[in-house]
Amino acid sequence: MSITHTVVFSLAHQPGSGEEAEFLQTARDTLSAIPGVHEFTVRRQVSTFSSLGFQFSMVFDDHPAYTAYNDHPAHVRFVENRWKPEVTEFQEFDFIEA
Amino acid sequence: MSITHTVVFSLAHQPGSGEEAEFLQTARDTLSAIPGVHEFTVRRQVSTFSSLGFQFSMVFDDHPAYTAYNDHPAHVRFVENRWKPEVTEFQEFDFIEA
Repeated sequence: MSITHTVVFSLAHQPGSGEEAEFLQTARDTLSAIPGVHEFTVRRQVSTFSSLGFQFSMVFDDHPAYTAYNDHPAHVRFVENRWKPEVTEFQEFDFIEA
Repeated sequence: MSITHTVVFSLAHQPGSGEEAEFLQTARDTLSAIPGVHEFTVRRQVSTFSSLGFQFSMVFDDHPAYTAYNDHPAHVRFVENRWKPEVTEFQEFDFIEA
């Protein structure tokens, strides 16, 4: 059963800044290239009921593919070098068919 | 520009109960029938990083369609009669293309 992995987050960067755009582009390039990642999307979060500003979403065919992504060196490096220093707040949600 | 409206939530009902199934089915029947609602989906939230158990997601063509849904009597009645008494916790997120 496929799993949609999502994370809603905010960045330390100024809205509309070059740093913000570069983070989003590098995340897209890096994470969407990891084997098993399908339908990688970057969206803006615009509800005033949440302070979070962006969402990444991706689909895995099954749980082993999700685990392989989490453990992939490109993901681990991205989390250490970019995510931890530049993301101020985040919330993960994973969805399966009801 | 289209808007994806989502709410992640938990129910007061026992997992797997008839009450849970009935709530989800009634929500689907009621909310997906409101004019302007596209791609209504019900999903289970399975990340252990969140305590929330379900998600509703729907797409509106534009902001007026979203407002019309919010103000529609069927939505207002559903919120008063079912959502408020049966939902214990929720978080709304709305997404647009980045």
